[in-house]
Amino acid sequence: MTSAPSSDRIWTAALVVIGDEILSGRTPDKNIGQIASWLNVQGIRLKEVRVVADDPDAIGEAVNLLRVRNDYLFTTGGIGPTHDDITVDAIAAALGVAVEIHPQARAVLARYYETRGGLTDARLRMARVPAGASLIENRMSGAPGIRHGNIFIMAGVPHITAGMLESLTGTLEGGSPLLSAQVGCWVAESEIADLLGEIERAHEGCQIGSYPFFREGRTGANFVVRSTEQARLDRCVSDLVVGLEAVGYPVLVGGI
Amino acid sequence: MTSAPSSDRIWTAALVVIGDEILSGRTPDKNIGQIASWLNVQGIRLKEVRVVADDPDAIGEAVNLLRVRNDYLFTTGGIGPTHDDITVDAIAAALGVAVEIHPQARAVLARYYETRGGLTDARLRMARVPAGASLIENRMSGAPGIRHGNIFIMAGVPHITAGMLESLTGTLEGGSPLLSAQVGCWVAESEIADLLGEIERAHEGCQIGSYPFFREGRTGANFVVRSTEQARLDRCVSDLVVGLEAVGYPVLVGGI
Repeated sequence: MTSAPSSDRIWTAALVVIGDEILSGRTPDKNIGQIASWLNVQGIRLKEVRVVADDPDAIGEAVNLLRVRNDYLFTTGGIGPTHDDITVDAIAAALGVAVEIHPQARAVLARYYETRGGLTDARLRMARVPAGASLIENRMSGAPGIRHGNIFIMAGVPHITAGMLESLTGTLEGGSPLLSAQVGCWVAESEIADLLGEIERAHEGCQIGSYPFFREGRTGANFVVRSTEQARLDRCVSDLVVGLEAVGYPVLVGGI
Repeated sequence: MTSAPSSDRIWTAALVVIGDEILSGRTPDKNIGQIASWLNVQGIRLKEVRVVADDPDAIGEAVNLLRVRNDYLFTTGGIGPTHDDITVDAIAAALGVAVEIHPQARAVLARYYETRGGLTDARLRMARVPAGASLIENRMSGAPGIRHGNIFIMAGVPHITAGMLESLTGTLEGGSPLLSAQVGCWVAESEIADLLGEIERAHEGCQIGSYPFFREGRTGANFVVRSTEQARLDRCVSDLVVGLEAVGYPVLVGGI
């Protein structure tokens, strides 16, 4: 990775969500949202997410493609003690490295399970890592996360992943965080579509997203302005508010 | 597409979720879960999901790869009237076809907007389709969804997509729906990891997923057995319940 000034360089990440339970609709994913928000604060842009099955080939394909075209790759899911937890084996195979017991992970697990029935073979599975990996602290339960190069292997259970993210906070190199501000109107977005496009074009370095909704029987939309520079963001928001009010739509700063 | 007996053939779908708002963490995705559940009922397996930015290249890459390796491809997002709605253009470019106004979509929109200020240029954008497309009924608002070959282009707003799915219900060829049953225990999954693996191996055509949780200060897990055949599913669930109770964990059928 090169080291251009952090304000210019855009750092990117991809996420691979691993789990039949997401693809079957059984479990609503919560990791995409929490990792996306966390990455933004680190100055890292989430570029792409893939949700794949508990299938070594599907995991390997996604990991090998996304780790080379992004600065960072995160995975969630499949690092527990049961037969359907195949993430470590699949990633090791994709990287062409062996799977080994990480001595520090074994020690963490031995300590955690000391008062919980001891370190069984099944539990020892959670100390297995692709050779050459380091650990990510798990502040919530026993099994640690795993870092291998630019790959971060996290838990599937959202609050465990949240703890792992917390322990990584501030440790990854990133650029300027993407700032955003939201304003909302009771308007059909089709009424002001041209205005939005004009204002975006007039404000270099800003993107405007338009997100319609239907609430209390009425049509409205929130507009999210994004930029890495506060001054540009402020000017764009200000012009957007003036523009919307000029055509007769009172604006709620912060959104509806 | 070949037509092996529908009970043998596994029909697959992929989903491309299009939207900066998902990747930034602003908007929690709800379409993955609802489309996954709906596909299961149609006898179609969701194999892979990608979340990509409002970027024509990213959309095109995902669409062109996934439409050829699955029976069906769904997309959500980016079909509204504003400048950030680029899905139709990106898919048309990926397919190498022109974008045209669909006369029936224009008629639908003209009728919908008759009492809502008329069919402006911005609104007419929502009648644009990749050449050769047909429409998917929108039961919730004006703009229809779009079908082109095996590609289904749906709204980003979840309740609008829900209405489009409803209008497609029963119209797509599929195989046997994937059945599932859940049982739960107050147990650390690492306690019974070996048992789960053994039972899965003993029941061909069944998969067992293990989903741990932490609630009220206690550790538990739900186990989901999946199969396309009810009899196999029932036998596997029964053996699982017997197995768990034999090692001292009372089971809640239906899950905890």
